[in-house]
Amino acid sequence: MSLLVIGTVAFDTIETPFGKTDKIVGGAATYASLAASYFYNQVKIVAVVGDDFPKEEIADFEQHNINTEGLQVKPGEKSFFWSGRYHNDMNSRDTLITELNVLADFDPIIPESYQDCEYLMLGNLTPQVQQTVIKRMHKRPKLIVMDTMNFWMDIALDDLLETIKLVDVLTINDAEARQLSGEYSLVKAAHKILTIGPKYLIIKKGEHGALLFHEDKVFSAPALPLAEVFDPTGAGDTFAGGFIGYLAKVGTINFNNMKNAIIFGSALASFCVEKFGTEKIKNLTAEEVSGRVQEFVNLAQFEIVL
Amino acid sequence: MSLLVIGTVAFDTIETPFGKTDKIVGGAATYASLAASYFYNQVKIVAVVGDDFPKEEIADFEQHNINTEGLQVKPGEKSFFWSGRYHNDMNSRDTLITELNVLADFDPIIPESYQDCEYLMLGNLTPQVQQTVIKRMHKRPKLIVMDTMNFWMDIALDDLLETIKLVDVLTINDAEARQLSGEYSLVKAAHKILTIGPKYLIIKKGEHGALLFHEDKVFSAPALPLAEVFDPTGAGDTFAGGFIGYLAKVGTINFNNMKNAIIFGSALASFCVEKFGTEKIKNLTAEEVSGRVQEFVNLAQFEIVL
Repeated sequence: MSLLVIGTVAFDTIETPFGKTDKIVGGAATYASLAASYFYNQVKIVAVVGDDFPKEEIADFEQHNINTEGLQVKPGEKSFFWSGRYHNDMNSRDTLITELNVLADFDPIIPESYQDCEYLMLGNLTPQVQQTVIKRMHKRPKLIVMDTMNFWMDIALDDLLETIKLVDVLTINDAEARQLSGEYSLVKAAHKILTIGPKYLIIKKGEHGALLFHEDKVFSAPALPLAEVFDPTGAGDTFAGGFIGYLAKVGTINFNNMKNAIIFGSALASFCVEKFGTEKIKNLTAEEVSGRVQEFVNLAQFEIVL
Repeated sequence: MSLLVIGTVAFDTIETPFGKTDKIVGGAATYASLAASYFYNQVKIVAVVGDDFPKEEIADFEQHNINTEGLQVKPGEKSFFWSGRYHNDMNSRDTLITELNVLADFDPIIPESYQDCEYLMLGNLTPQVQQTVIKRMHKRPKLIVMDTMNFWMDIALDDLLETIKLVDVLTINDAEARQLSGEYSLVKAAHKILTIGPKYLIIKKGEHGALLFHEDKVFSAPALPLAEVFDPTGAGDTFAGGFIGYLAKVGTINFNNMKNAIIFGSALASFCVEKFGTEKIKNLTAEEVSGRVQEFVNLAQFEIVL
């Protein structure tokens, strides 16, 4: 039994009002697998990098018990590179550079040893590649979670809709939910998106938390109010990785466990934004994680006896 | 013992994407006192109207056990009138007409029978008038809640700050908290605002719920995700009225009761936006209110054992 994470493993340079990084390691699969590793010790990644990717970074994955057999290293090629600048509100950003490099013709090969996968996290990537991964699993995983973004809605909507049909949980942000559904009300948007196929929809609202929709049920999770958001890069991937990692740990898929998984995912995401890149989420202790989850409990809980 | 509500009692005409009203009854004190009346039966209002204000509407207050002895009716004068148009997102609006009329020289006279007031709700109004009310109370009420808006920050900041110093709870929205503090982070904004004087700060975030700050504690309340928001007018006043009405009912001021008060206030506000004006919040049953509060419990509660 294992949790397979597919997505980008890449280089980023990031500018925020707090500073600017050199090329640092990023990518959806990086953040998601690191986050999941705090809850589950059978995390495996499928991704592609060039031979410019530092061996020590691959060793770092292994230190977190993340299996890298599925991480293809392409000799003579360069890793995916993204550069972005955040605005003062930290909610919007401009992409400065996107170099696809190895990602341009990424063929996601699933090692035989990964076929025991019960939990599949499809990190943000071409929907076609996400779909290929599902099709290459000999047995459909028990739970497939898919993250995506507006970019694919703009340029590959048909592929995206076909892939969404195949998954159990879709995670997108509020603007993307509105774009995908054509509905302004998130309740209407959610109900429309759930008719495409997924059983669960998570709408991420950044500093306003997240909403979970399933059938006629809805759960609202808060975000931790932070004095300083240093770098939002990877927060959504970290959230998704923590979410599926927690579910893999508890092993039972139901609405109550999903609610808790959102709180655990949110707790990890709240760490992610406190430093540039993966710096914070690479070095957390179990006590820090449970302390942060307790902060969410204190933040959201009230007792009303009707 | 009573709960005194001061604010506008007025006429509005409202345009939303769903339609347009004739002149209907509105005003901060109208919404707040109606909301409070669902929890507490000693609500008293101080406000001013012209003799164009319908007697049946005053009778309606009394039907809700709202004491109108402090509602001044000015012969030969006209009631305050506001007209606004909401944009498609329902979060922003344009003011089309503001006619101060009787409000221009409003002198808030406190009837002697109101001097037993333990709970004072200062609805949105000139900070100078709000302050006069506090000064005219023979004995400082046990709890003073103040609502205000960006308009007073723009034109009467010194008066506003002086009034804020005197209250226990301030309610403002997120943009206003940022404007008042000069801080983008709501955590930093809250801590700065609490140093002005209030012991509690509630930051209203509309469809994203509300945050309560007190010392180093914070509580995040969700908003109920609604398929349709029909008319947001008065939602903030309804929230504040429900909030203080619930506290007057329970009688003990502490952080836990404040959290519950926010949920009760939010529940009433969620009804308010479902119809134009006061239509919905004038005619609620106790069962509807407790059913809605239960929806908030279901929406926000999770169980994590660490």
